Amino acid sequence: MIPFQVQVLYDFSGETNTSELSINVGEVLTVTRDDVGEGWWEGRNSKGVCGLFPESYVERISSAPPALPPMNPLPVTPAPAYQSVPPVYDNDFVSNAPSDDDDWDDYPEVQHHQTKVLPYNQGSYDNSRYQNDDNISESNFGDGKGTAHTKRNLNRFSTFVKSGGESYILGTLKVSVAADQRVVISKHDEVTFSWPQIVNAYTVHITSPKKESKLKGLKSYIAYQLTPSFNNIKVSRRYKHFDWLHERLMEKFSIMAVPPLPDKQISGRYEDQFIEHRRLQLQEFVNYVCKHPVFRQAKQAERDPLLGANYCLTIQAPEKELMSSIVDSKIDANLSFVQNLDSAIKNLMSVAMDQAKKHQGPYKREFAKISESFHRLGFALSSEEKSGMLSLPSAITNIGVAYSDIGQYYEDQPKYDWEPLSNTLYLYKGLTSAFPEIFALHKGVQQKRKECEKNNMPPAELNDIRRRNDVLTYAIFAEMNHFKVQRSIDMKAAMQSYLKEQINFYKKIVTRLEQTLMQLDDC
Amino acid sequence: MIPFQVQVLYDFSGETNTSELSINVGEVLTVTRDDVGEGWWEGRNSKGVCGLFPESYVERISSAPPALPPMNPLPVTPAPAYQSVPPVYDNDFVSNAPSDDDDWDDYPEVQHHQTKVLPYNQGSYDNSRYQNDDNISESNFGDGKGTAHTKRNLNRFSTFVKSGGESYILGTLKVSVAADQRVVISKHDEVTFSWPQIVNAYTVHITSPKKESKLKGLKSYIAYQLTPSFNNIKVSRRYKHFDWLHERLMEKFSIMAVPPLPDKQISGRYEDQFIEHRRLQLQEFVNYVCKHPVFRQAKQAERDPLLGANYCLTIQAPEKELMSSIVDSKIDANLSFVQNLDSAIKNLMSVAMDQAKKHQGPYKREFAKISESFHRLGFALSSEEKSGMLSLPSAITNIGVAYSDIGQYYEDQPKYDWEPLSNTLYLYKGLTSAFPEIFALHKGVQQKRKECEKNNMPPAELNDIRRRNDVLTYAIFAEMNHFKVQRSIDMKAAMQSYLKEQINFYKKIVTRLEQTLMQLDDC
Repeated sequence: MIPFQVQVLYDFSGETNTSELSINVGEVLTVTRDDVGEGWWEGRNSKGVCGLFPESYVERISSAPPALPPMNPLPVTPAPAYQSVPPVYDNDFVSNAPSDDDDWDDYPEVQHHQTKVLPYNQGSYDNSRYQNDDNISESNFGDGKGTAHTKRNLNRFSTFVKSGGESYILGTLKVSVAADQRVVISKHDEVTFSWPQIVNAYTVHITSPKKESKLKGLKSYIAYQLTPSFNNIKVSRRYKHFDWLHERLMEKFSIMAVPPLPDKQISGRYEDQFIEHRRLQLQEFVNYVCKHPVFRQAKQAERDPLLGANYCLTIQAPEKELMSSIVDSKIDANLSFVQNLDSAIKNLMSVAMDQAKKHQGPYKREFAKISESFHRLGFALSSEEKSGMLSLPSAITNIGVAYSDIGQYYEDQPKYDWEPLSNTLYLYKGLTSAFPEIFALHKGVQQKRKECEKNNMPPAELNDIRRRNDVLTYAIFAEMNHFKVQRSIDMKAAMQSYLKEQINFYKKIVTRLEQTLMQLDDC
Repeated sequence: MIPFQVQVLYDFSGETNTSELSINVGEVLTVTRDDVGEGWWEGRNSKGVCGLFPESYVERISSAPPALPPMNPLPVTPAPAYQSVPPVYDNDFVSNAPSDDDDWDDYPEVQHHQTKVLPYNQGSYDNSRYQNDDNISESNFGDGKGTAHTKRNLNRFSTFVKSGGESYILGTLKVSVAADQRVVISKHDEVTFSWPQIVNAYTVHITSPKKESKLKGLKSYIAYQLTPSFNNIKVSRRYKHFDWLHERLMEKFSIMAVPPLPDKQISGRYEDQFIEHRRLQLQEFVNYVCKHPVFRQAKQAERDPLLGANYCLTIQAPEKELMSSIVDSKIDANLSFVQNLDSAIKNLMSVAMDQAKKHQGPYKREFAKISESFHRLGFALSSEEKSGMLSLPSAITNIGVAYSDIGQYYEDQPKYDWEPLSNTLYLYKGLTSAFPEIFALHKGVQQKRKECEKNNMPPAELNDIRRRNDVLTYAIFAEMNHFKVQRSIDMKAAMQSYLKEQINFYKKIVTRLEQTLMQLDDC
């Protein structure tokens, strides 16, 4: 091969004592081998250091003017055929093992569906809307640089076009939807509409993350074991599989709130704590997907055209025409609700993370200090008094031991209370932050409809446009309702679990101190 | 009167909105009235500000050379007659009201016993050996400036002379002790000797500190109510009375470990917290005095000559001659024991004080932050969901209320656990730090005996010297034994009480969280 140059899109920290090369965003590398396989390339950085790095972390620098709009880099190694991708949703995701697992990596994979013709830039997804400090609102524009991996351009019009709003409202997509694919929205009361009830509820339990390796240890990854409740057959999946599923959900269900994946953290990714944390967040993701009446049932058709707003073509909604004023006030109230909720969730999350850290650092240290003081006093007294298990000095030393244990309880505790609570909050932060974009799409559709109403359009066509607008509104109302119902259930469960663990924690301290007091009473 | 100049010995913070003048150590004042009464003078500082200050806080600047060694300032106003001082020890202190209570103040009173002829500088006591950072050891010399209120000169020879060591070992004091005044030391085993057993044990309970005032509110003070268990008759006493008693004990029992008084803190002395803290420390002081077989029984005779080492003339000790080598090794071991203990106690005290502060500051703030986050989340959710007592948002708000309550528990807690523990530690810090000085006195006496043995002394006289040395040794052994026995009892009780309160504290949190969980379960 002829060496070529690439630019780094993501930071990557090579594991020490391997052939991996650490690379930084923006850096230019010279690729010396593109036939390493398994998604790895060999290259040399500007300092002359050679090593392996994930090919999907870099972008080929082309000297020719781009033939395509700035999207993904062209696949340089043969990408796996679309068919080799694990089937996506529902039992497909968990019951059929991917046919070619080894072709996958834990890193962002964006090139595998490049061949599909879609009404929007399907490669432009990134997970950044779930980052800590993101702020999804109409004012949050993309940076306009337009590589496939930069933030999505979120201005209203762009969202509207990309999410299929325009093609939907204008009815440009002509597809027929089979009766068994129809999703029925039902009416509860004048303002409450909902997705179909779930029948055959199932769960998928994620367990035993295992480190596995390939290529004689050159490459390792974590495999999670997924056990669906409907067949209890364990399958092995990796982060990238979840990532791929998540991407498909984002692509298809942009009018709904797709739960977030854990962050694509790279460095330290094989540390037990990180892996367990990721497992728990993946579990939250899977739980939400399984409990969502639409997500859980969706089947991925090849070249599925019913994406974004066009998904509404699948929907059978109540016939009643909706009044704009009622719709607008409900959407506006909800927008302000989710904005407040977003800020409250972020606040509690930051307190939760802060407390988790303090438990493991400062609080533990306080107990260590207390422990040491009692130890010292016990020791100082033991030099005069008779020693032995039942002496006062040893009872005082025992108090020191007790506080050292309590410090350990503090260190261990966050994984029982603050961290699980954080995981649920993380889920709801992601879901909450999805709504402003959905509302923006809705506004775009309404806008287009008003434009159509101003122009002289045939009444039949205008009627269709109004109806399509209403169906989208019904879909968004159903999604809001689902979000509300599920949130109440999940938040309540999370708070209950948190409080139970807090109670257990303080009870454990009580028990430990009671033991200590008994030893003291006996001396 | 002719105005005269004084120099300030102690800082004094005048209460605002009174005629009091704030004065600082070293400042020179011009006294304009010395007939204000009640221990107050009127004066003017260098800035021309006029006001009242306690006369005992200043020292008259004399232009004539001092006729006396630097001791107390001469009393400028007529000092109360010695007879008006409240009787000191035992039931005298608590059963007879001082005849002229109003002549007393809460500030150091050193001039009332100036007329007594004593073999050492009786005015030189100060409380500094109980200050936080004191370090009582042979290397801790006084600053040599020699005013009555500066630190006591603690070099060994000085201690030896001042505490009557020399006059005692040489037998220069000729007094006869009545049979009923004799204190018998008994032998338990080869190395354990003890003071007489206490018969008719009693306690004195200190309660209800009350702010009282005189001079139309110009002057106010705190009166503590003392109730002795032997007659249950309440008497009122002020800090200065305790101070006076403490001074007498220090004067008379310098071969024993006198419990410390609370610090003579001046500023903020009428704050409830300070007063309560002082009450508890006075209670510790009184408890120790009541439980000490010697202190509790001592009667103050006028011009009592049996002070310091000469107190041994009262003692009837075992006849057996003590072996120097055994004595030395026991004293040395004890010196190193009390030094280690002192350091361990100080360490635990500083942790206790640190924890007490942290409970009231940072820990409480952490819970306030947690509380606020749950409040915010409850509030954010309440804008969408139905409100009412049993809704999820109000249950989440309740979690916020619970953590705010828990924060309050944290703030309140130190007065139940760390502070009482601190008070006991403060007592034992004071007692522990008394021993090096006692051992130094003992070494001085031994030294003197050896000198006598080298000189050609008549054998009978030398015998008496050896015997007197042994009696002192027996006394110190008895005191060490009392210290050990009482310490075990008090330390155990303090630790038990501390642990019980810690258990109650965490139980209270458990109960509060359980309530909160129940409310959440019901929503």
